[in-house]
Amino acid sequence: MNVTVSRKAHFNAAHRLYRKDWSDQQNELIFGKCSNPNFHGHNYELIVSVTGPIDPQTGYVIDMKVLKDHIKTQVEDVFDHKNLNLEVPEFMDTIPTAENIVVVIYDKLKKILKPNQSMEVVLYETPRNFVTYSEKL
Amino acid sequence: MNVTVSRKAHFNAAHRLYRKDWSDQQNELIFGKCSNPNFHGHNYELIVSVTGPIDPQTGYVIDMKVLKDHIKTQVEDVFDHKNLNLEVPEFMDTIPTAENIVVVIYDKLKKILKPNQSMEVVLYETPRNFVTYSEKL
Amino acid sequence: MNVTVSRKAHFNAAHRLYRKDWSDQQNELIFGKCSNPNFHGHNYELIVSVTGPIDPQTGYVIDMKVLKDHIKTQVEDVFDHKNLNLEVPEFMDTIPTAENIVVVIYDKLKKILKPNQSMEVVLYETPRNFVTYSEKL
Amino acid sequence: MNVTVSRKAHFNAAHRLYRKDWSDQQNELIFGKCSNPNFHGHNYELIVSVTGPIDPQTGYVIDMKVLKDHIKTQVEDVFDHKNLNLEVPEFMDTIPTAENIVVVIYDKLKKILKPNQSMEVVLYETPRNFVTYSEKL
Amino acid sequence: MNVTVSRKAHFNAAHRLYRKDWSDQQNELIFGKCSNPNFHGHNYELIVSVTGPIDPQTGYVIDMKVLKDHIKTQVEDVFDHKNLNLEVPEFMDTIPTAENIVVVIYDKLKKILKPNQSMEVVLYETPRNFVTYSEKL
Amino acid sequence: MNVTVSRKAHFNAAHRLYRKDWSDQQNELIFGKCSNPNFHGHNYELIVSVTGPIDPQTGYVIDMKVLKDHIKTQVEDVFDHKNLNLEVPEFMDTIPTAENIVVVIYDKLKKILKPNQSMEVVLYETPRNFVTYSEKL
Repeated sequence: MNVTVSRKAHFNAAHRLYRKDWSDQQNELIFGKCSNPNFHGHNYELIVSVTGPIDPQTGYVIDMKVLKDHIKTQVEDVFDHKNLNLEVPEFMDTIPTAENIVVVIYDKLKKILKPNQSMEVVLYETPRNFVTYSEKL
Repeated sequence: MNVTVSRKAHFNAAHRLYRKDWSDQQNELIFGKCSNPNFHGHNYELIVSVTGPIDPQTGYVIDMKVLKDHIKTQVEDVFDHKNLNLEVPEFMDTIPTAENIVVVIYDKLKKILKPNQSMEVVLYETPRNFVTYSEKL
Repeated sequence: MNVTVSRKAHFNAAHRLYRKDWSDQQNELIFGKCSNPNFHGHNYELIVSVTGPIDPQTGYVIDMKVLKDHIKTQVEDVFDHKNLNLEVPEFMDTIPTAENIVVVIYDKLKKILKPNQSMEVVLYETPRNFVTYSEKL
Repeated sequence: MNVTVSRKAHFNAAHRLYRKDWSDQQNELIFGKCSNPNFHGHNYELIVSVTGPIDPQTGYVIDMKVLKDHIKTQVEDVFDHKNLNLEVPEFMDTIPTAENIVVVIYDKLKKILKPNQSMEVVLYETPRNFVTYSEKL
Repeated sequence: MNVTVSRKAHFNAAHRLYRKDWSDQQNELIFGKCSNPNFHGHNYELIVSVTGPIDPQTGYVIDMKVLKDHIKTQVEDVFDHKNLNLEVPEFMDTIPTAENIVVVIYDKLKKILKPNQSMEVVLYETPRNFVTYSEKL
Repeated sequence: MNVTVSRKAHFNAAHRLYRKDWSDQQNELIFGKCSNPNFHGHNYELIVSVTGPIDPQTGYVIDMKVLKDHIKTQVEDVFDHKNLNLEVPEFMDTIPTAENIVVVIYDKLKKILKPNQSMEVVLYETPRNFVTYSEKL
């Protein structure tokens, strides 16, 4: 009997979408105003979900405080108030689209999973645009 | 590696729930105040999700602007500020319940999918009632 | 020492914006797609606020249950699942813009106020458009 | 062709997390401030989703009013303004964690399902913490 | 030129509404299920607003971090995961209605105000019920 | 009889908080991680409210479409996907704190007001932090 436990978190960051190997014109064509060389930014809202059996001792799938602290050290401390392109190593050679960010976050967080648990991460780039990643998709 | 990209949109419309082949009494019995012959209406909120692989060139599953524009021409321009029963051909012979509307919207939008992509549509009829459709359900 | 107590409520309705004494062309010019003769509709969300002194016996400004019931009988039962133009007497000769609706609701609800209380009504026509009325504005 | 229909509901309750067979110290260690012997409480928000085929007669998967009334009698009337540990029989011997509560709610509601329908229940303990249960997880 | 700066916070607590000098019957009559002797609870959401001139040096009315920390020490640390009736001294002899709680919070927070600043506090007891207090009301 | 009409809008931008005439150390001390030289960013959500009498001809205080278009040309087109410090002239010599941004937006928008109308602008920097400006405060 599996239950999913979800926790919301958030961070603010600057980014731009562009490829170094493309001309400014081509970046503008594909990424539009998101390729602005001076950056723009978002309040990223995050929902991390862990699915697994309930521990009969505690009634928990995972202790929310443990999940919250892990999100803080692995994601918030690393991304919050940062320039993703310039300050987060994973995006030195990867375009920080919402799709790529959510996969990076998933990879950072999945370390806490036990073998009988799985994870899904939802990332809101704006209240109207969001992405979801799990290995089941 | 598949990621899901989701975009919110919205439209306002009037509708009523009733069957022409039923008496007023039977319509009232089944559809209650939703069968009001003078119509009532809703702010429909829509979430369209496309699941597929990330394009390694752009870091996109699908360009949000393309998805947004497609929702506008296929759904918002056709449904917004309309009377669904009287002005939208799909509901001339189909009752515009949330369930039927979400399937119609899905069918209109699925044309943009590439063979390796799938779609899910969520339609909020009110902030407290919503429906979800995808071929996987 | 005054405190404000607020309660949310909601109703769904159809309406259209037009003046009988104007041509269709002029209605279209001023009210755009809101003048659609077949009506459109909204989920109206309502926030009713009563300001007054705290009753030292109960710790209440007004009993929320009393306020909730009054909103139900005076507003929800009258407006919900109705066509405002055709079925609500106040809008037979008044255009049901959000501005006019909020004033009508205020007038219906203010009867419950004690002499040392005042009221404010907020009406969301959509999650992005709303109006506010009180005699203090 | 299956569609999912979802309905939001809510109740307020008090609870505490602790095991009678553990010392106060061990309860404090595992459950932190949630083990406060004087209880604390939450506004629980609930989303109940039923998936199944659309009835071609009515255009409904399930009549929302039937679902709403069932949630009221099975969940809201039993849990609202209650102390879960002291007043809800299911939690006399089960710790009322969000995980355990969502499974209890699921079991109470699944009785209304037809053989070709399935259910999912989401329970928000706070706006930032929530759990999800269905037999498919 | 005054600007208002607002910060959201939250805490969870148990409470009951009753007067020791009233019979159980009278408490039940006035406070209904809120008088349950076993307590019930809420996720209280708080919005604290400070109005004052912008400091020309910093562009701040008040440093959000200072406001956030003050809310934490004065309100969250004192009320979170507590039983308001049994564990918060201000409610030993005062009924913990939302109205009384918001005034207590206001009094705890107003110490940080400079002479040219004023404050308003909004307290959501549920997403549908909230109260507002400031000395201007 | 005045009514307030409110419209929500939004833009995404990058910014940093710092004074050129202060050392890095002093900027860090006062503005913390908001002074990051590589910028960070936000989804700014905006609520623009116009208060005035209802036009008896139209039932409008102000045509929402006019207000929406004015917000688009004066605010969204100028701020969206921009670096406020580098690309918006008003912030060349003014720190782009939420307080300063809301006053700049107010000044850009107040041109549309008629003599018997007043305005209020609310700017959410994050879902948890927001500022409000009007000449009445």
